[in-house]
Amino acid sequence: MPKSLIRRSLEGYRPYVPGEQPPDGEGWVKLNTNEAPLPPSPRVLEAIRAAADESLRLYPSPTAAPARAAIAHHFRLDPSHVSVGNGGDELIELCFRAFVGAGETVAYPTPTYPLLEPLCRVHEARPSTHPTEQAWELPPSLGADPSRLKFIVNPNSPTGAQFDRTEVEAVVASSSGVVVIDEAYVDFAPYSCLPLLEKFANVLLLRTFSKSYALAGMRIGYALGSPELIEALDSVKDSYNVDRLAIVAAVAAIEDEEHHRRIVDEVVSNREQLSTSLAGLGFELVPSSTNFVFARPPRPAHELVAALRERKILVRHYDREPIAGWVRITVGTRDQQAALLSALKEIL
Amino acid sequence: MPKSLIRRSLEGYRPYVPGEQPPDGEGWVKLNTNEAPLPPSPRVLEAIRAAADESLRLYPSPTAAPARAAIAHHFRLDPSHVSVGNGGDELIELCFRAFVGAGETVAYPTPTYPLLEPLCRVHEARPSTHPTEQAWELPPSLGADPSRLKFIVNPNSPTGAQFDRTEVEAVVASSSGVVVIDEAYVDFAPYSCLPLLEKFANVLLLRTFSKSYALAGMRIGYALGSPELIEALDSVKDSYNVDRLAIVAAVAAIEDEEHHRRIVDEVVSNREQLSTSLAGLGFELVPSSTNFVFARPPRPAHELVAALRERKILVRHYDREPIAGWVRITVGTRDQQAALLSALKEIL
Repeated sequence: MPKSLIRRSLEGYRPYVPGEQPPDGEGWVKLNTNEAPLPPSPRVLEAIRAAADESLRLYPSPTAAPARAAIAHHFRLDPSHVSVGNGGDELIELCFRAFVGAGETVAYPTPTYPLLEPLCRVHEARPSTHPTEQAWELPPSLGADPSRLKFIVNPNSPTGAQFDRTEVEAVVASSSGVVVIDEAYVDFAPYSCLPLLEKFANVLLLRTFSKSYALAGMRIGYALGSPELIEALDSVKDSYNVDRLAIVAAVAAIEDEEHHRRIVDEVVSNREQLSTSLAGLGFELVPSSTNFVFARPPRPAHELVAALRERKILVRHYDREPIAGWVRITVGTRDQQAALLSALKEIL
Repeated sequence: MPKSLIRRSLEGYRPYVPGEQPPDGEGWVKLNTNEAPLPPSPRVLEAIRAAADESLRLYPSPTAAPARAAIAHHFRLDPSHVSVGNGGDELIELCFRAFVGAGETVAYPTPTYPLLEPLCRVHEARPSTHPTEQAWELPPSLGADPSRLKFIVNPNSPTGAQFDRTEVEAVVASSSGVVVIDEAYVDFAPYSCLPLLEKFANVLLLRTFSKSYALAGMRIGYALGSPELIEALDSVKDSYNVDRLAIVAAVAAIEDEEHHRRIVDEVVSNREQLSTSLAGLGFELVPSSTNFVFARPPRPAHELVAALRERKILVRHYDREPIAGWVRITVGTRDQQAALLSALKEIL
């Protein structure tokens, strides 16, 4: 495009490219974007169908009030500690709008969620990156970094590892700015940073309904934090950022704790099976605290991924150091995993 | 909040506050946020219910591809000319992300949609405002303004007036940056700026399903423009900004042209009745090209609005010059308008 039309700071910009979404119903084994292997709660589907009525002519609650109330109740918090977004990604972006100015820095350990770097570009902020030596060790330099905004994806993606709990707390304690802990995968992990909310006013936790509630298609995430930080997010968000059906879905989903438990149990159980099988095939693995497995195959990753794709099996691979040659495989159903393993045996 | 936590540029920031959304089903006559007086198409509701199934566990199409295709088909355009957003507001915000850098200016006539000024603050851009003398006249200074991004809400809100067609084209022709024409209300107006897309590569038109398709609750808007501008919007948007049900709703809505026609005809017909009645009660009116009427009541607006609110009738009023003392009344059903007019007669 004529360079004169696009924002100058975006010259040479490389957007985040999400994993491939093949057209539905064509028999793909889709293990590339960390969706849930089980469907959402039947109560969610019923609630959506019941809400698909004439009231859709009206704007939703600007604060997604029913969802805030249900989430707050779930965590025994006041609703002033909760903000709801159009997926976790929107909340990450709102943190940029609310907390970091042009020319300032945003600190985070690397490798991590590849969305952060393009968001820095969009907001004219500079990434202040802290490479990790071991997947589960936070770089000590992160705490001392003076950035006004820090992100810790915990458990991390794409490594699947959860950082050491005391190290995370130490970073929060030594930071004078906002520390965002993205807990998108936390329901599959040994611990949550929830207790930090009581001790620190500069922490925001991000959560999502996309993974452990099987609602990636509905785009619902939420932030938990002090009323001051929540108010800041609310003040910069779009007026009606969550639609009526997403609000209804969030309420029904968080109220069906049993179904949620079933999804989490299935994922954790299948993850152990997948990890064991991959190790048996010669993959190097990072111990996973998520709904995916991060692994280095015994032969070049891009070839493996292409061969799997020919068999209609999608997984994600990485081509940038330090994770070039690694693949990220979403935990699937037992059937999906059997198909994957059988294909891998053929290919390897 | 501690000033050290929020973005420095937001000190003293006043967010846009959308009109009140009272809790549902309590007998309010809601004429304050320009929603449709009729329900959405029954085909939309059916399509949503049918789509509320297990596939919600999967992410939506990142490009909302089915909605893009349907919208493109409707306008006889290639899908590369269409981007879909989480309501028109998201698309406005994406224009800031894509086209204006920190420290740069954004030009628009005033008064207009009060979201633009807070968005400038969030993106560290400066508003370059061009006051209108007459509601339907674009200030001649807007064309010569060197800003890289300009907005023309056309028909405008809250005035309800559509700018002179040749003046809009003249602004586009004399601008080297991007000119965004927000046509949220255009289905109720005498003309659209669609023909400008063929002549100019620097024009983006924004449209919404919130008003004339009665889907404010679903949050769906779209942008039409050159592939270069569309690609720029896509590169800075969140990966999955439109959920699965909103995509399905958009397709069904744009395909039911007959229902759309019915909503537009009802609004235009009721608008004439409302305008005539208000004029008869001594209101000063701007001729409306939208689904609302902008009017100055014969007594102080804030008193009038408060008295209506006591009767469970909501309209919007303004307290900043040059529109202090004016009210904006959404076109309603005949019954709603009868309730409003009867209340007004009591109050005045």
